[in-house]
Amino acid sequence: MSQGTLYIVSAPSGAGKSSLISALLNDNPRYDMKVSVSHTTRAMRPGEENGVHYHFVSEEEFQSLIAQEAFLEHAQVFGNYYGTSRVWIEKMLNNGVDIFLDIDWQGAEQIRQQMPNSKSIFILPPSREELERRLTTRGQDSEEVIAQRMQEARTEISHYADYDYLIINDDFDVALMDIKAIIRAERMAQAKQASKYHTMIDELLAD
Amino acid sequence: MSQGTLYIVSAPSGAGKSSLISALLNDNPRYDMKVSVSHTTRAMRPGEENGVHYHFVSEEEFQSLIAQEAFLEHAQVFGNYYGTSRVWIEKMLNNGVDIFLDIDWQGAEQIRQQMPNSKSIFILPPSREELERRLTTRGQDSEEVIAQRMQEARTEISHYADYDYLIINDDFDVALMDIKAIIRAERMAQAKQASKYHTMIDELLAD
Repeated sequence: MSQGTLYIVSAPSGAGKSSLISALLNDNPRYDMKVSVSHTTRAMRPGEENGVHYHFVSEEEFQSLIAQEAFLEHAQVFGNYYGTSRVWIEKMLNNGVDIFLDIDWQGAEQIRQQMPNSKSIFILPPSREELERRLTTRGQDSEEVIAQRMQEARTEISHYADYDYLIINDDFDVALMDIKAIIRAERMAQAKQASKYHTMIDELLAD
Repeated sequence: MSQGTLYIVSAPSGAGKSSLISALLNDNPRYDMKVSVSHTTRAMRPGEENGVHYHFVSEEEFQSLIAQEAFLEHAQVFGNYYGTSRVWIEKMLNNGVDIFLDIDWQGAEQIRQQMPNSKSIFILPPSREELERRLTTRGQDSEEVIAQRMQEARTEISHYADYDYLIINDDFDVALMDIKAIIRAERMAQAKQASKYHTMIDELLAD
């Protein structure tokens, strides 16, 4: 058994990150890939499920988890806490499961420091025009709101060079195959394969 | 246009390296992948074609190419010279073509030093039993000859840990898909994609 890989996945809003991760895990259900579910202190919204969208915990519980160093990273946004469980991720990786962590560039920086063997993927929309289209067709938003979203998208995009892989989500199916190729190739990495096949390799090398 | 990748491919005899490389390039002919053809001073054998199996040159020509530093590596085996053309490989890589270099562990070491951005793939047979089978079914060989081949295979295999990727050739089609995934994933590497899409990225980041 070789260790799983922790994949950090970031993208500006509108690049299709969530759809790609969902398709990756749902198209072809496998037990060797899972998405990391964050802990949060914010209230559950209609349609959300505990343990699926988030692990919903009280602020006391969250503070206690911080004290136990149970998080790889955590942040406070609009008064609510969000955190990524170190314990669960390490257990899964030790079981050979690849973990996908949907996180912004700031969280990605913290995770990279804690987990130097992680691999990071940045997803880009195919053009500015398409990004603007994807950020506006969500509803009847004012120009101001759209300009604000574009500014946030640009901030996120400005960190693309910190990632190991860059995927352009022009054709969804092509982008999905790109991610699948990355996962398959990373499983061929020498150290992972050597760990998985060490008995066979020892046998090949025996006199 | 981004740079092509130089792939160093090594394996013990009997691992199926040549068949995998041929299948990779012939199954789905593309102009963005080519095999490096070595120069040699040895005589052409029946069925061989100049420029396909080797570039057949005289010893004088070979010595002149060495003097011009035209080779990434060269070696003398049983009195004949063999060399890998630096000029051709660099031209192809600059044109965005991925190059496959079928070479043993010693040549691989020299290439890695000259071309630090190269990626190396080692192919293993699935078991000792299968390796022995593949090394014997080629003809009516004496036990001594087979033992000699096994010893050469073990020497080659002992360098597996120097490679970036390790592929187990148990099922040929699976191994072929593994190599294809590696090539596809390497093309997603941040620096290559950033170079290919720099205009688009500049546009996304513009105010």
